[in-house]
Amino acid sequence: MENQTTYRYQIVTQNVDFTLRATIDSLGNYILNTAGNDAQGKGFGVDALSPMNYTWVLSKFVLEIDSRPEQFTDFNLTTWVNKNSRLVSTRNFELSDLSGNVFCRSLSQWCMLDYIRRVPVDLQYIESSYKNYICEAPSPCDLPLRLRAIEPDVVCEHKVVYSDIDFNSHMNTMRYIGLMVDMLDIELLRSNRPLRLDVHFMNECIYGQTLKVGMQTLENQTLFEVTRDDGVVACRASFIWR
Amino acid sequence: MENQTTYRYQIVTQNVDFTLRATIDSLGNYILNTAGNDAQGKGFGVDALSPMNYTWVLSKFVLEIDSRPEQFTDFNLTTWVNKNSRLVSTRNFELSDLSGNVFCRSLSQWCMLDYIRRVPVDLQYIESSYKNYICEAPSPCDLPLRLRAIEPDVVCEHKVVYSDIDFNSHMNTMRYIGLMVDMLDIELLRSNRPLRLDVHFMNECIYGQTLKVGMQTLENQTLFEVTRDDGVVACRASFIWR
Repeated sequence: MENQTTYRYQIVTQNVDFTLRATIDSLGNYILNTAGNDAQGKGFGVDALSPMNYTWVLSKFVLEIDSRPEQFTDFNLTTWVNKNSRLVSTRNFELSDLSGNVFCRSLSQWCMLDYIRRVPVDLQYIESSYKNYICEAPSPCDLPLRLRAIEPDVVCEHKVVYSDIDFNSHMNTMRYIGLMVDMLDIELLRSNRPLRLDVHFMNECIYGQTLKVGMQTLENQTLFEVTRDDGVVACRASFIWR
Repeated sequence: MENQTTYRYQIVTQNVDFTLRATIDSLGNYILNTAGNDAQGKGFGVDALSPMNYTWVLSKFVLEIDSRPEQFTDFNLTTWVNKNSRLVSTRNFELSDLSGNVFCRSLSQWCMLDYIRRVPVDLQYIESSYKNYICEAPSPCDLPLRLRAIEPDVVCEHKVVYSDIDFNSHMNTMRYIGLMVDMLDIELLRSNRPLRLDVHFMNECIYGQTLKVGMQTLENQTLFEVTRDDGVVACRASFIWR
């Protein structure tokens, strides 16, 4: 469809876990890096926004995985922007093998932030570059779930270190997911269990902060909440096991 | 030179740190993955060894970095095997930009292990496939340093989790380096300081073990020792800052 763009990637050795399948966060990284590169190529990436002191901030992220691909698998990643409100841009993703079988669907909601005034910006300010790329195709998965405070069974501490941070000195988005996945029952990962992941990014974490990662295990669902050392909730997540 | 083989890679977004330069461990990962793929392509990789119940085990690793390349940099990685003793195979690496400027040199020493009997194996058992690929070019850096026990100033604990382990359920080689780098003074990394890294891998760590990572800071050198919860030393390392 018009305004859907497809990129080709390969699952490399650095992406796989002990089962030799791509990790959840490596698939998330392909998705988010593609979001950045696609926006840049179409004239509304962070590079185009930065002269106005604007940037994109990821607010909600959904990832549905039917099966994680094996090492050296080539795959197509198709992305498109649809349904826009004044303050939220929705970007969608579909990952498929070279026969066209979709194995992963994703939806992301972004706000444009004025990083000097620390306020959200109306998307009309970039309408000229942006509106030409809006696509009518529906999102490939349901909208983000509501995620409420949890009652953790287990809490792990994590200090934000060098390898966690991005060029803003903020904790990298996918590192939150990585920390959560490391707390899961490893059998869920060994068995390549299909899942739906919802993440709400609420407040950023910076280098040197100590985080508490709380996990609550329900039947067929695992909930997480990451709290900073000042008590502020950084993010919440839900893994639904299918 | 004959029996040197060159591979082309690019520093992708997943490889870079907050300075947008490749991390030390991502360069190490390119090197070790190339070692595996090169050996496999030439008929003496782990796949060829496994019917005899043999495998390659990395014993010592040296990495000299003059400057870590920026995101999206294309580079060439040349590898060759030289100087062999009966029990140790030496594999060398040179990383250069597309103008031929070498920015990283590496040397690795491998043993062939009988993983049923848990003993080293004489390399003559694979001589027929292996000896045709021995190259006379010298190693690009000095031999591994001797590394002795350290007197740590700082000790961090780390539990071996899902994202740390490889298909053997052993801690991934480069994860040791990643843990050490996360303990360094971040200014050494921000400034892209040239370095020589020596690592001795002594005993493996497995999923669920809790490790102590000790660090001792000297003038222009940082030493590390990783100890398992049973008191066994897993590895030692030295970063020399140039």
